[in-house]
Amino acid sequence: MTSPAVTSAPTPALAGIYPRVQQFYAAQVRHLDGFRAEEFAATFTEDGVFDHRPGTEPLVGREAIAGAVLGYQRTRHAADPVQRRHWFNMLEVFPQDDGTLRTEYYALVLHTRPGTPEPQIGPSCFVTDILTVTDEDGEPRLLTKFRRVRQDHLV
Amino acid sequence: MTSPAVTSAPTPALAGIYPRVQQFYAAQVRHLDGFRAEEFAATFTEDGVFDHRPGTEPLVGREAIAGAVLGYQRTRHAADPVQRRHWFNMLEVFPQDDGTLRTEYYALVLHTRPGTPEPQIGPSCFVTDILTVTDEDGEPRLLTKFRRVRQDHLV
Amino acid sequence: MTSPAVTSAPTPALAGIYPRVQQFYAAQVRHLDGFRAEEFAATFTEDGVFDHRPGTEPLVGREAIAGAVLGYQRTRHAADPVQRRHWFNMLEVFPQDDGTLRTEYYALVLHTRPGTPEPQIGPSCFVTDILTVTDEDGEPRLLTKFRRVRQDHLV
Repeated sequence: MTSPAVTSAPTPALAGIYPRVQQFYAAQVRHLDGFRAEEFAATFTEDGVFDHRPGTEPLVGREAIAGAVLGYQRTRHAADPVQRRHWFNMLEVFPQDDGTLRTEYYALVLHTRPGTPEPQIGPSCFVTDILTVTDEDGEPRLLTKFRRVRQDHLV
Repeated sequence: MTSPAVTSAPTPALAGIYPRVQQFYAAQVRHLDGFRAEEFAATFTEDGVFDHRPGTEPLVGREAIAGAVLGYQRTRHAADPVQRRHWFNMLEVFPQDDGTLRTEYYALVLHTRPGTPEPQIGPSCFVTDILTVTDEDGEPRLLTKFRRVRQDHLV
Repeated sequence: MTSPAVTSAPTPALAGIYPRVQQFYAAQVRHLDGFRAEEFAATFTEDGVFDHRPGTEPLVGREAIAGAVLGYQRTRHAADPVQRRHWFNMLEVFPQDDGTLRTEYYALVLHTRPGTPEPQIGPSCFVTDILTVTDEDGEPRLLTKFRRVRQDHLV
């Protein structure tokens, strides 16, 4: 089933880090969709920047990021308790010379209301991240240092 | 294009198994969406458990799982022949000490009716699996030993 | 966190190429969704075939493929400027004896109109590709040699 062209090529660094990034994002959105504000914020660097909406100030630091999640939960979610699910897809990972990873991907938010099987879908977004990579007992540990979200309907 | 931080880190076991799990799920849903009931059931272990809906008995064993697929095909699909597509995303893979893999992921079902380009979408689900991993001629072979599906609108 | 069953299995060739295919598709759709017609066409081989719709002639070669993207942009997009996003998922990669990769995956097109957060979604498609793999300074370089798209509502 394998072919010479595939097996003779050295495994690129990308193949080692790409699935890690996918797993990292899955864990990150699980915290977000479960309103685990502290845990979500801890997936950013201490000085992490979350530029989540044009026209508003970016969130800077874990406290601000956690606060935004809690604020959403206490206002919009309290008034309209939907189950949010963040889907990321079409991921590109670009290792940088300084050891960080720049990533680009599409994102989509799904909102499910109790009793309604069809989720409300949107917005569709384009996201750019800078991730830091540190060695933790031989495992790469990823953190988001910078995130910029651009919603397709606002561009 | 590669960076010291990325290339110096040893390739973790996760990077080897994560794409395998993605490929496994793609093959599994292809069988399901094509009503290949026996082939779909064969992606579960002999004693596989499919807890697909709260309030109903879990399906146990391949015969029961295949029977559920055929039952769906002969009733709901026969009455309303849609093309179903199961989408999984935001996958986390957790290797366990006993050699199995626990996974968590989001799932979404799309239904396309003949002549209608826009699919009906839903439900949105959260799924937990236990996968077994066996060596088959040097290739890891995956099977679903346990699956629990929770639909977001029923939680 | 790792298990004997996982770490003792040799890393299969699939684990090295699968993330590369995902990254390749992400870059390819980014060109398509950004109307970078030449760059999109350059992700196909010189003699690449794009069988994008039953009942129409397949596009053959980069010029024809780029022309189709520009044609879409100048007519449908000019009349109705939506942001398209192509999502691929549930990818299977099958290395072939001749060194190419056959792939199968689901695809979904999302269209976002300015000011409207909810995208229009569809059609849902099933896609089969043949990708060529060449060595480029030790990195596998992928190109689409053949693509067949089947829209679920037209089958």
